Amino acid sequence: MKQYLKIDEWSIIEESFDPQTQEISESVFSIGNGYMGGRANFEEQYSGPSLQGSYMAGVYYPDKTRVGWWKNGYPEYFAKVLNSTNWIGINIELDGTPLDLAACTVTEFRRVLNMKEGTLSRSFTATTQDGKEVKVESIRIVSMVRHEIGAIRYSLTPLNFAGNITVTPYLDGDIKNKDSNYDEKFWNEVEKKAGPEGGHLTLKTKKLDFHVTSAFVFDILLNGEPVAAEPEVLEQDKYVGSTVNVPVQSGDQLVIYKYAANVTSRNYGLGQLVDAAGSALQSAREAGFVALLTEQAAAWGDKWKESDIIIEGDVSAQQAIRFNIFQLNQTYTGEDDRLNIGPKGFTGEKYGGSTYWDTEAYCVPFYLSTADSAIARNLLIYRYKHLEKAKENARKLGYRKGALYPMVTMNGEECHNEWEITFEEIHRNGAIAYAIYNYVNYTGDKAYLGQYGLEVLVEIARFWEERVNYVAHKDKYVMLGVTGPNEYENNVNNNWYTNRMAAWTMEYTLEALAYVQENEGSRYAELADKLELLESETAKWSEIIAKMYYPADEERGIFLQQDGFLDKEIIQVKDVLPENLPLNQKWSWDRILRSCFIKQADVLQGLYFLGDRYDLETKKRNFDFYEPITVHESSLSPCIHSILASELGYTEKAYEMYLRTSRLDLDNYNNDTEDGCHTTSMAGTWMSVVHGFGGLRVLNDRLVLNPSNPGHWTSYSFKIMFRGSRLKVTVTDAQVTVSNETEVPASLTIHGKEYTVNGLGTVSAGGASVTV
Amino acid sequence: MKQYLKIDEWSIIEESFDPQTQEISESVFSIGNGYMGGRANFEEQYSGPSLQGSYMAGVYYPDKTRVGWWKNGYPEYFAKVLNSTNWIGINIELDGTPLDLAACTVTEFRRVLNMKEGTLSRSFTATTQDGKEVKVESIRIVSMVRHEIGAIRYSLTPLNFAGNITVTPYLDGDIKNKDSNYDEKFWNEVEKKAGPEGGHLTLKTKKLDFHVTSAFVFDILLNGEPVAAEPEVLEQDKYVGSTVNVPVQSGDQLVIYKYAANVTSRNYGLGQLVDAAGSALQSAREAGFVALLTEQAAAWGDKWKESDIIIEGDVSAQQAIRFNIFQLNQTYTGEDDRLNIGPKGFTGEKYGGSTYWDTEAYCVPFYLSTADSAIARNLLIYRYKHLEKAKENARKLGYRKGALYPMVTMNGEECHNEWEITFEEIHRNGAIAYAIYNYVNYTGDKAYLGQYGLEVLVEIARFWEERVNYVAHKDKYVMLGVTGPNEYENNVNNNWYTNRMAAWTMEYTLEALAYVQENEGSRYAELADKLELLESETAKWSEIIAKMYYPADEERGIFLQQDGFLDKEIIQVKDVLPENLPLNQKWSWDRILRSCFIKQADVLQGLYFLGDRYDLETKKRNFDFYEPITVHESSLSPCIHSILASELGYTEKAYEMYLRTSRLDLDNYNNDTEDGCHTTSMAGTWMSVVHGFGGLRVLNDRLVLNPSNPGHWTSYSFKIMFRGSRLKVTVTDAQVTVSNETEVPASLTIHGKEYTVNGLGTVSAGGASVTV
Repeated sequence: MKQYLKIDEWSIIEESFDPQTQEISESVFSIGNGYMGGRANFEEQYSGPSLQGSYMAGVYYPDKTRVGWWKNGYPEYFAKVLNSTNWIGINIELDGTPLDLAACTVTEFRRVLNMKEGTLSRSFTATTQDGKEVKVESIRIVSMVRHEIGAIRYSLTPLNFAGNITVTPYLDGDIKNKDSNYDEKFWNEVEKKAGPEGGHLTLKTKKLDFHVTSAFVFDILLNGEPVAAEPEVLEQDKYVGSTVNVPVQSGDQLVIYKYAANVTSRNYGLGQLVDAAGSALQSAREAGFVALLTEQAAAWGDKWKESDIIIEGDVSAQQAIRFNIFQLNQTYTGEDDRLNIGPKGFTGEKYGGSTYWDTEAYCVPFYLSTADSAIARNLLIYRYKHLEKAKENARKLGYRKGALYPMVTMNGEECHNEWEITFEEIHRNGAIAYAIYNYVNYTGDKAYLGQYGLEVLVEIARFWEERVNYVAHKDKYVMLGVTGPNEYENNVNNNWYTNRMAAWTMEYTLEALAYVQENEGSRYAELADKLELLESETAKWSEIIAKMYYPADEERGIFLQQDGFLDKEIIQVKDVLPENLPLNQKWSWDRILRSCFIKQADVLQGLYFLGDRYDLETKKRNFDFYEPITVHESSLSPCIHSILASELGYTEKAYEMYLRTSRLDLDNYNNDTEDGCHTTSMAGTWMSVVHGFGGLRVLNDRLVLNPSNPGHWTSYSFKIMFRGSRLKVTVTDAQVTVSNETEVPASLTIHGKEYTVNGLGTVSAGGASVTV
Repeated sequence: MKQYLKIDEWSIIEESFDPQTQEISESVFSIGNGYMGGRANFEEQYSGPSLQGSYMAGVYYPDKTRVGWWKNGYPEYFAKVLNSTNWIGINIELDGTPLDLAACTVTEFRRVLNMKEGTLSRSFTATTQDGKEVKVESIRIVSMVRHEIGAIRYSLTPLNFAGNITVTPYLDGDIKNKDSNYDEKFWNEVEKKAGPEGGHLTLKTKKLDFHVTSAFVFDILLNGEPVAAEPEVLEQDKYVGSTVNVPVQSGDQLVIYKYAANVTSRNYGLGQLVDAAGSALQSAREAGFVALLTEQAAAWGDKWKESDIIIEGDVSAQQAIRFNIFQLNQTYTGEDDRLNIGPKGFTGEKYGGSTYWDTEAYCVPFYLSTADSAIARNLLIYRYKHLEKAKENARKLGYRKGALYPMVTMNGEECHNEWEITFEEIHRNGAIAYAIYNYVNYTGDKAYLGQYGLEVLVEIARFWEERVNYVAHKDKYVMLGVTGPNEYENNVNNNWYTNRMAAWTMEYTLEALAYVQENEGSRYAELADKLELLESETAKWSEIIAKMYYPADEERGIFLQQDGFLDKEIIQVKDVLPENLPLNQKWSWDRILRSCFIKQADVLQGLYFLGDRYDLETKKRNFDFYEPITVHESSLSPCIHSILASELGYTEKAYEMYLRTSRLDLDNYNNDTEDGCHTTSMAGTWMSVVHGFGGLRVLNDRLVLNPSNPGHWTSYSFKIMFRGSRLKVTVTDAQVTVSNETEVPASLTIHGKEYTVNGLGTVSAGGASVTV
């Protein structure tokens, strides 16, 4: 864990240049707009260690599966978000010597990710090996307003020489994914054109035929005046560029504006791509760079209005939570229901595929509370659209009916190839059902059930029905051979969480069926017909619900993570020598499997999801047993423990877990930030504040808050959108204040007491406290 | 299952040429001598589907591991037996047109593997596309007498044309392993020399620096007279050859003799390789081809004297058992204790590494009974020499003490990379301990314990000690997270077989310690010191033996394969629709894991190994439960079931299982013979005759036979070497006859009655019967 970034409320700041941390910074300073994005690579050439990365949402490649030993049922490919055309490049030469920070002495380096306004800027003074000193300032955006547009202002001042500066803005499509399974390149060139003012380049993927057209224009000014020099036009394989030679005097200021557009065949016909890119580009250039910055700041202002969390008295925590919210907002904007949230967003390539259960378990709650409900709804629709593929997936694995959603997917098909996960981590089906419940419960949009939700629920319930088997000598239904959320156990029998979520899915499906039958009779008939729903099925679900087997230890009063868990030697994490941690780097896999140590919340995940069905004592006994043996080696783990700790009044533990999740990438806690940020787990950080410290729940259509103060902050506040109102909740030790920022009145319960906040009104309640 | 080979007592015969079955035949007709060997590729060029394969025992390559998802503890490489220089090649051109059976009309094709005399011969008439007809006869040996020598006689007769026949004998080292993980070639050229009479070629492996020198000489005769033409000498990258043009008339007979030597740096200094190859070659050529054939037949005669099994009244079974014995004898001769028995011998590349637990569980019994005991002993010494690496392997996986032998190895290091097997299929340790018991029990060589055995036993016992854990609420020791012999279950708790063999190892180790202490006091002291043996350890082993947990079902009176086995839905294989079989091709991996179906003998393997500790009723109950749910999708399974079925008097079942194992490759039962033969499981076939039908056991230093007749044979006989004597046991329905082929008298028990067979004498006992 190396902290080299400066603490600041609104910005991420790096104040010196270190090639050792360049790849980490490339991840952390990434910018995007939900439609495209990329790592914080340098505009000018850079020969040091770097992962050049520029990604277009939804443009992927089915990379041939690589395995050691094939297992039947594995998918043929792993879908990878594609590293696509580098549109930021502006190469610089000083009298023929490339400006390359890896080969210069660099001083006054400063890189800033301005999260308030959505800009990435950089300034430095570089001295080349032949002694030429130049000052550079750049600022770059990926526009939140014009989703196809990125823009750069790049200025150079020679400090101690006169000579020629050669400027080469370009588009380079000859790139490759770092994680390519067989070291292949995934793009073919379709066409290109370079001209004196810019150019365009169209590539298509070698499989699936995604087309991406990138186009750029540029302006060069010397001391504010356009440079007259005639550019040399460059066309190479998958590359277009223009080179301009500018004679300069010491102290001159050379400014390059580069505007780029990236459009894809996901949104345009093949014949329209070049024109679409051209017109987006023209409009951006006509607006001008300053206007782009202004509208960018305004757009981010709107995002913050909906989602900001303010922490007083702890700048580090303030910076961290804003970083998490910023990354989430620039990864997914929810406007396109074909998109989802990749575990690294636009910040890296690892885990290639776009969608994991992270979306339903962690991201949906964030978007439910911080954005229009249509956005969370789009995340649900994404799965609805994949229902047929999930049914096919179940058939492929030998099920006669039902749907098994994939562990990792881009287009609904399973991508992952690790049997203990691909085939056995089926609890993901439960999370997908739970997200429907969560959405309907939060928004009150019960119509969603009849429209889309019920079909998904029924097919998942059917899957569970077939997946369990009845054991006569126990008079119970069991579920054998699964992997729970805790991936440090594989192929276990009766994972409590999975069994519980399976039975819960059936319950909720029956409830939803009853609701639609009662309230939307004709839709019900239509659905029953479409789904060929049998009474014998629903009767079977009731029987399974009644007879589901749940491993438990009566003596300790806890649920057992799986059959036989207490046959393990129970050792606490605190008793493990520090040199053994993290286990996943220090121990062999079998040792991890045999040990009692838990990677991430498992029983506790269930107690969080189904929190209203378990009393505090039950939660406490389980937390007291499982927390000390959990190593939190998944970024998705500490947030759940933090939320439960808050609920149980374990304030110190809640805060410890919050810290672990919130600065994971900023402090490179897991020593892997260079691969990209842990984007989806950032939603968990948000949850640990709002669901954890804030105690937010929605029970029986009512907003409930039980705020506590983790004890290190003067105050904190968060925003929640709930059924048309947007509330700002501010918590101090003395009181909880809820301000309604909209004209829609809201009712809520704070610490057990009911309040109504009128439109634009404010209510105050007793301060942060804990109710255990 | 396609039967295209002719049934014959002593030969494998193919009577027509079919490119579709060429790769299967390449495997089946393979020849070798324990030192080198290769597939039955054609001498002349062949452009059809083919796996060219020539292998040198012990020459391997550490091919970089390929995995989908890395797990801590995986080895960096998988060792592969190397496909090495093709020394059989003799290209033929008829007036410039290559003789290539894939491009000719082929008639009168006949390929014969003469198992009695150890030759591979082939004859055919081929007509080229331009109408030239030629008759070819070839015969090839890999000498059992001169281990470095291979020799070929290749004769051609033009039947309908006069013209030029071009003959090119060569050595080609530009070959590659079919199973190379990253499509790399593994050899570099060191030096070469081609001359008019032959040439040599030295290659070395890109890693580990194994050097192999191949050398060849040739003679060409036209109608019995040496051909005068001056050869053209060829040198290319990793290739030497000579081309001779011979003008021929229709009806002329052209005969090529090619002698090749292959020597390796395993046996010679680098500077000696060329000379060593040269002198082996010279001596072979001087002896002449006929003498080589004669000595080959004599050497194989000796092998058959020791190991033949004669079956009267069933030619198919006769051929099959001889094929199994022949393959075993040409794969491993036991003279080099650095070598072991690869699962495919010299017949293919699959499973790359050389040594699996197959050696101890299946091959040791075969060599114990059919060869000098020094040979089985060498197989044990092989593991003794790897003890330090097995200790290192245990450390790597996190054990403080003890040794874990690898699942797959070439030099003692683990090669395999599948966590559920590599890390969890630890029962292999039990088989390695068992082989020591088996050897000592069979041979009476108790001195082996003090010399080598005890060290291995103690380190394995220590491993088991650390691998189990005590569970207070059960007052038992359990073993969590293992994979038993049945690989259709992974990461289970308390696999009965593994727990049983672990406790048994400790028992036998204590017994062996006591024996050495009592009989070899000073050696005991020396060993106790070397091993730093503590009394607390042996006390702990006694405690574990007493408190080992064995899953069982009281009601059915059976041992349970693992915890929770009866929670599965128990379905019999006969009730599975045929289109679902074999499961490993038809079902997804998770479905296989969740099902009750067993890949190979598991509980029953234990009941076979520890057969003298369980009564027939116990064996029967377990057999009756497990046999119907076993799919035998491992080639190692049916033989164990066959042996137990014989013991239980289930004659039909015993015979059914015998058929399944004995003609596995000849009938391509598993549809994979083209990858190579199932060499190690061939020892299981032998066991199902000798231990199964013959009922051979050694109890308290006494040979015991309980022969039965599977009911389809007039009679059968087998050889057994036992403590200096060699006995031929002949079984008919009427009587069991034991002839002593040596002068060493032998005592034995037949059907419970004691007999002594004098030197060169014979005894007869009652006929085949079953004692249940």
